Amino acid sequence: MQHFKHTDLYNFTYNVFRKIGCPNNDAELAAEVLLKADLRGVDSHGVARLTGYVRLWEKKRINVKPAIQIVHETPSTAVIDGDEGLGLVVAPFAMKVAMEKASSAGTGWVSVRNSNHFGIAGYHAMMGLEKDMIGLAMTNASPLVAPTFATERLLGTNPIAVAIPANQQPPFVADFATTTVANGKLEILQRKQEKAPLGWVQNAQGQPSENPGELSEGGALLPLGSDRVHGSHKGYCLGSIVDIFSAIFSGANYGPWVPPFVSFLPLVKDPVGEGIGHFLGAMRVDAFRPADEFKKHMDQWIQRFRSADTVDHQEKVQIPGDPEREMESIRSKEGIPILEPVVKDLRGLAEKFSIPFIK
Amino acid sequence: MQHFKHTDLYNFTYNVFRKIGCPNNDAELAAEVLLKADLRGVDSHGVARLTGYVRLWEKKRINVKPAIQIVHETPSTAVIDGDEGLGLVVAPFAMKVAMEKASSAGTGWVSVRNSNHFGIAGYHAMMGLEKDMIGLAMTNASPLVAPTFATERLLGTNPIAVAIPANQQPPFVADFATTTVANGKLEILQRKQEKAPLGWVQNAQGQPSENPGELSEGGALLPLGSDRVHGSHKGYCLGSIVDIFSAIFSGANYGPWVPPFVSFLPLVKDPVGEGIGHFLGAMRVDAFRPADEFKKHMDQWIQRFRSADTVDHQEKVQIPGDPEREMESIRSKEGIPILEPVVKDLRGLAEKFSIPFIK
Repeated sequence: MQHFKHTDLYNFTYNVFRKIGCPNNDAELAAEVLLKADLRGVDSHGVARLTGYVRLWEKKRINVKPAIQIVHETPSTAVIDGDEGLGLVVAPFAMKVAMEKASSAGTGWVSVRNSNHFGIAGYHAMMGLEKDMIGLAMTNASPLVAPTFATERLLGTNPIAVAIPANQQPPFVADFATTTVANGKLEILQRKQEKAPLGWVQNAQGQPSENPGELSEGGALLPLGSDRVHGSHKGYCLGSIVDIFSAIFSGANYGPWVPPFVSFLPLVKDPVGEGIGHFLGAMRVDAFRPADEFKKHMDQWIQRFRSADTVDHQEKVQIPGDPEREMESIRSKEGIPILEPVVKDLRGLAEKFSIPFIK
Repeated sequence: MQHFKHTDLYNFTYNVFRKIGCPNNDAELAAEVLLKADLRGVDSHGVARLTGYVRLWEKKRINVKPAIQIVHETPSTAVIDGDEGLGLVVAPFAMKVAMEKASSAGTGWVSVRNSNHFGIAGYHAMMGLEKDMIGLAMTNASPLVAPTFATERLLGTNPIAVAIPANQQPPFVADFATTTVANGKLEILQRKQEKAPLGWVQNAQGQPSENPGELSEGGALLPLGSDRVHGSHKGYCLGSIVDIFSAIFSGANYGPWVPPFVSFLPLVKDPVGEGIGHFLGAMRVDAFRPADEFKKHMDQWIQRFRSADTVDHQEKVQIPGDPEREMESIRSKEGIPILEPVVKDLRGLAEKFSIPFIK
């Protein structure tokens, strides 16, 4: 495991996006969004995916000079066509539209079609915090999840992020897949050759499994709740709502029709829409209540939860966003650890595009 | 277990609400919302709670002639003060405001303070379906749930309902507590003297428990996900978001300060707001896309999921709302089964208010 400085990884990533043809501003933004994942400890969504984006570009599934446009709108809503652009660029564009709507109408809600993987949902949700706006971000994704009772993979890990400003306290930032675990955790177990806990995956026949490689053998991730007795139908509801808001509002593909992120899987033959879909929301806090009152009560909420009595007095109750913020603070100073296979991939990109790799 | 006709239970419930002083329209609405729970099979939220509302009224914690008013608004948002009215009446008022906002601004979002238990969230979310609106309804509730790692009860079961219209297919109606199970399921196990599955509750020390009576001994319900390994921090996030949107937007009580529904528990001494809070939302489908296109794709989504391959080909994949709709169809014809203790409670109300009980 090598450690890299954030700025070095950022510059390298920026150079790769420039080399595939992204305009300067887009390359900066895409690199920023991707690196935010590494900084916050969501390693599966950071530079580890850079080669994946490049491969999609090679397959002509990413348009590096998209004409992103609003195709429909009302005072508080819009639908955006991402023109096959990088989700890393399309989603912040859409979030800005949501925030403009919120400025005038109190809230703004934007559904996006014809996009691609948008990185970590939390980045987009957090965009409104400085303006005292609550941000929401969701996206659908490659089908890997079986609804309760199903053996088929019909939903993606369909994450939801919600960022809420406070005053003295850091913001509340929830950002989670609507499955028991994100796919990245299975990949880590596979690498370590360890078993997965029961309740994370099922095999191709829909039976409980401890094999972290089950996805490559026709198995599926399980919705949050794991099984019917523990509420997996609720996780399935959440993933479905994300799918519908992201894709049926906008005209993107949904359910099993969502195009895979990995370039080696073929696109479905009978698409029901264009690309993948996102849903972004912004709510001005003072559309409900003076911002200082709201944030004062958020401080009180956060303090009360953080100081709750805990099991064995060992673990503290964490506020959503705490672990990622602590990680960001550490990695900003100490650098970002990158696994050997990922370093190798990045070196490959350096060669491919004749750009210097990080010294 | 006796069976009662829906209309008989409705008329009786209406009479009780009239007797405690509700105006005619409010008594009709409150009875309709309450009975909707019984029809849809959510027995814990129907007439079984009628005595609970009456006891709150006796404690002067419900104002039967509330002056419900909008205290703040923007084109797409409003905050409503429920004036200590029945949640069964305050929430539909708020949902109507959300729908009016949606008519003009595309979407409408209403946070409510100074209210009470609002019955099933699904009733309110479904109000917009006929107008091709998606409805959302959430509420906070008496603290019974321990966040991940905590031994204290800081959140309610904080349900989320989302209703989405389709065309040929019945609507998608998700309505679920953000816990592994709703409290009602524990009460059923207690009555049957059966154990609870692990992952539903913890004891007062925060240890796993199979005792369905754990709540009366200082234990707590668990957030959806059950434990940290299976994603309980995600259920805790969801419950927290419901709490914040319902109460910190509006100025209601939140977290451990939410007043208990049961009248025998005292109110907290240092309230941070007024009453309990709700959050209602309405989104016009055609604020995003022509309604017929949207609904055609919802039909396709629903059909694809409903026809998915299943484990052992036994259970079918259910669409959110399927079980409740089937129950409503059966109970509308065959009557509503009411448990003996509830029948006894209702007879008690008949005596108290000198109204005839159902023959």
